[in-house]
Amino acid sequence: MTEHTLILLRHGESDWNQKNLFTGWVDVDLTEKGRAEAVRGGQLMRDAGLLPDVVHTSVLRRAITTANLALDACDRHWVPVRRSWRLNERHYGALQGLDKAATRDKYGDEQFMLWRRSFDTPPPPIEAGSEFDQSGDPRYAGVDVPATECLADVIPRMMPYWEHDLRADLSAGMTVLVTAHGNSLRALVKHLDGISDDDIAGLNIPTGMPLVYRLGDDFMPTGPGEYLDPEAAAEAAAAVANQGR
Amino acid sequence: MTEHTLILLRHGESDWNQKNLFTGWVDVDLTEKGRAEAVRGGQLMRDAGLLPDVVHTSVLRRAITTANLALDACDRHWVPVRRSWRLNERHYGALQGLDKAATRDKYGDEQFMLWRRSFDTPPPPIEAGSEFDQSGDPRYAGVDVPATECLADVIPRMMPYWEHDLRADLSAGMTVLVTAHGNSLRALVKHLDGISDDDIAGLNIPTGMPLVYRLGDDFMPTGPGEYLDPEAAAEAAAAVANQGR
Repeated sequence: MTEHTLILLRHGESDWNQKNLFTGWVDVDLTEKGRAEAVRGGQLMRDAGLLPDVVHTSVLRRAITTANLALDACDRHWVPVRRSWRLNERHYGALQGLDKAATRDKYGDEQFMLWRRSFDTPPPPIEAGSEFDQSGDPRYAGVDVPATECLADVIPRMMPYWEHDLRADLSAGMTVLVTAHGNSLRALVKHLDGISDDDIAGLNIPTGMPLVYRLGDDFMPTGPGEYLDPEAAAEAAAAVANQGR
Repeated sequence: MTEHTLILLRHGESDWNQKNLFTGWVDVDLTEKGRAEAVRGGQLMRDAGLLPDVVHTSVLRRAITTANLALDACDRHWVPVRRSWRLNERHYGALQGLDKAATRDKYGDEQFMLWRRSFDTPPPPIEAGSEFDQSGDPRYAGVDVPATECLADVIPRMMPYWEHDLRADLSAGMTVLVTAHGNSLRALVKHLDGISDDDIAGLNIPTGMPLVYRLGDDFMPTGPGEYLDPEAAAEAAAAVANQGR
């Protein structure tokens, strides 16, 4: 049986994770902690002997820097690099740049959790030309930049990348590393693990922890995805779930 | 007239530049100074409004990290990345890992300068399986790894990459950044500036200084290459010329 190896890695802590701001497509940097998480992610891959043959990243700095640091730490800095906006975080609309706790206070728990975790309720759209609007950014030339996204919106723009680009490299026998974001990775895991629209709200992916899937001929998992450091991953996922509290 | 923009960037100071060791294909890291040089190179591109649309690197860490840092500094971390062993430094054969000053003392000035700067005298070949031999490295799978190279050997393995890969991106209208090494860049500059086999010995390319060529329809320069920081570049080139003294 052909077996493919897919490694998912959510970027380490960013400046705006630390400041507890909604980020989305705003191109913030990693914190020092985030950089250390990325290096640690690479060391975990190295220690497990799981070495990427290719890396795919979003076009956002926090994922790119995470990939660079992680690959350097496992001596795979030289592998081919592919990037796509389709792996970007979900666009957080008019919430981009707002404080999570203040937003919760202002709109209440229910609305806050709806925006953060509901499958199909997007935040209000960002105003064109406002501070955190990316529609004029040259990296999105030719892309129909969204004004807001819910997870249900991320799936149809991410899945073509899975179907064509990621599966092409897996088909070629490569161990594929995808360095991306909470919601683009949740969209992929939803597909791989067959998680329902309702249950995906409960899935949190921790930062900086390689999550490994073994896939069969049909590119579906032959078993559950495994974190290379399961104990730390469970702790970190709990912390993500508590954000904004 | 079609005009193409090509930017050449030699990696910043590496651990072994600092220690004055012959490096070649040994995959050493940048020093802190080398990292700062890379960032400065990116800032010079940013300040000049010369923004790469694509980056090409060797498969060696010092060039890859230089590219990552320089692109981050000019907000071009998201551009497509291409890598090739054809952009590697020249292979320094049995000299890899040896101290430059000690080698000069042992073999004398004439032999030392012949190995360093003669066009067609390669150093003695590296012994297969010795400490600094790269022939078993997975990044060179399918590559006929040389045992030693002089500049005349670098040209025929680098030029196909210029003819096909670099020119393809230039043809597509991209501003192309090549982040590579003293001798792979000398090979390219020799072609672009039509420098003779004898005169190329006198050409030194400083680290971390973007060197910009404007090319015409025929992919040849329409004027001399220009360093973005000419004064610092002249100083740095003089320092390179004095290495091993």
